[in-house]
Amino acid sequence: MNVSIIGIGLIGGSFAKDIKNLHPTYKLSGIDNNQAHLKEALSLGLINTASSYDELSMADLVIVSIPVDEMIIQLPKILDLIKADTIVIDAGSTKEAICKTVADHKNRRNFLACHPIAGTEYTGPSAAIKGLFYGKTNILCEVEKTAFKLQEKAISFFHSLGMRIRYMNPVAHDKHIAYVSHLSHISSFMLGRTVIEKEENEKDIFDMAGSGFESTVRLAKSSPAMWTPIFKQNKDNVLDSLEEYIHNLEDFKNMLAEDNYKGIYEIMNSTNQIKHILKGIPLTNNKK
Amino acid sequence: MNVSIIGIGLIGGSFAKDIKNLHPTYKLSGIDNNQAHLKEALSLGLINTASSYDELSMADLVIVSIPVDEMIIQLPKILDLIKADTIVIDAGSTKEAICKTVADHKNRRNFLACHPIAGTEYTGPSAAIKGLFYGKTNILCEVEKTAFKLQEKAISFFHSLGMRIRYMNPVAHDKHIAYVSHLSHISSFMLGRTVIEKEENEKDIFDMAGSGFESTVRLAKSSPAMWTPIFKQNKDNVLDSLEEYIHNLEDFKNMLAEDNYKGIYEIMNSTNQIKHILKGIPLTNNKK
Repeated sequence: MNVSIIGIGLIGGSFAKDIKNLHPTYKLSGIDNNQAHLKEALSLGLINTASSYDELSMADLVIVSIPVDEMIIQLPKILDLIKADTIVIDAGSTKEAICKTVADHKNRRNFLACHPIAGTEYTGPSAAIKGLFYGKTNILCEVEKTAFKLQEKAISFFHSLGMRIRYMNPVAHDKHIAYVSHLSHISSFMLGRTVIEKEENEKDIFDMAGSGFESTVRLAKSSPAMWTPIFKQNKDNVLDSLEEYIHNLEDFKNMLAEDNYKGIYEIMNSTNQIKHILKGIPLTNNKK
Repeated sequence: MNVSIIGIGLIGGSFAKDIKNLHPTYKLSGIDNNQAHLKEALSLGLINTASSYDELSMADLVIVSIPVDEMIIQLPKILDLIKADTIVIDAGSTKEAICKTVADHKNRRNFLACHPIAGTEYTGPSAAIKGLFYGKTNILCEVEKTAFKLQEKAISFFHSLGMRIRYMNPVAHDKHIAYVSHLSHISSFMLGRTVIEKEENEKDIFDMAGSGFESTVRLAKSSPAMWTPIFKQNKDNVLDSLEEYIHNLEDFKNMLAEDNYKGIYEIMNSTNQIKHILKGIPLTNNKK
């Protein structure tokens, strides 16, 4: 089987590592408009060959893992170039705009909209992790719009990587993911910004900061080039989640200002139930 | 040497583990108003004996690791009971109120105000971690108010555990720690609250949440009994930090509402410098 990975960064590279490991007979080619990444992916052995759209017609499986603004530009072009039984999957963190962009494409049935809930705050081929997808959820959208045989092919591939499959419509996906992923990134970026603005001397921060701070601002290391278009495409849902978050912070602030420590205790105590929720989230083993 | 640990939870228990390991001749006794914790500490071998204030006069080193509201009540009582050459250290996350509470105590020179920047979101003796303090910063306040020989004793003890020492005044400590620790906890608790309020079905959360969400809400597992009095004692600084954080979130929200993606990109890009800062923060190895 010929696999073409378009965008050979953290996600594309992690798919490549798992394919190499679990399907050693598959031929892996990589396409990336970042020539340095393509070269790096080759030297890391993530792909067998560097390729281009000219050779897309040879691919049986196409994995598109590029920022979501590029995704909506490239996906129609990619679907133009593939053969009749090729399955094209994406890994974008938004789903509504992506599904819309291919809705009327003549090869819509060759596309399966996917969001593997997996990743780290790092980018590029060197950030790829073997086994990244094992035990993780892959959210598939509008599965009914994909040719049945190609659905089967994609799902069997995901199962081979150890992924759990969940089906959602793109509107619901974007709404929920705003709360459990996009909002976390904003909270982290703005926390980092607040501390950086306050503490002019970096040394002061890391002398006084511990693993708690590290944990809450970790996502502020994420790529602005990847995240700006996500916030743009999911603007309305992100704004809703941000508004509710700010409201809760204001509520906490008011309770503190009014010395309502009983209220503060109770709200923290009820939020402690997050313990049980976090137990259900499959985490990434960062060892590569 | 006789060591008395008052409050044998995560921090007290971790001191006990390091003392057992590094100073096997020291005798460890534990005092805790939670009898279940005391029993657990004994059965885990963290302490040699369960003790009480009646025996405090036998201690050479007293480590007080209890919530900060209890700290300001207990510290004067503890200082009443010790012998002339005993050093009492605390581990509270606030320093101004604690230093004030003992300022005029006749045995003030037997006390050294400390804040070891170490811990996890867990509580109780079973949460104790061997080597928790290794490579971590210990912030000492008003060191000049501690008898010189007792300073030396305490600092040599901290060095034996691998800690880096930093000196600050309590007012500066409380101001900075609001930004790099207390604010992180509020951001995490309110993020957890926002998601829990939105997602009535827990399964929906952990099907869609990944390690990024886990990282940003980890601190929402923390103990309300420990954190409520911290926010109370550091109210003014926490309110300032919270206000600035909310301001930055509002700013992000406005940029998004106005489709100012250049602004969003730039603010994330400049916050990315947190990468270098995080490299300087010593992290906790959670293996016990």
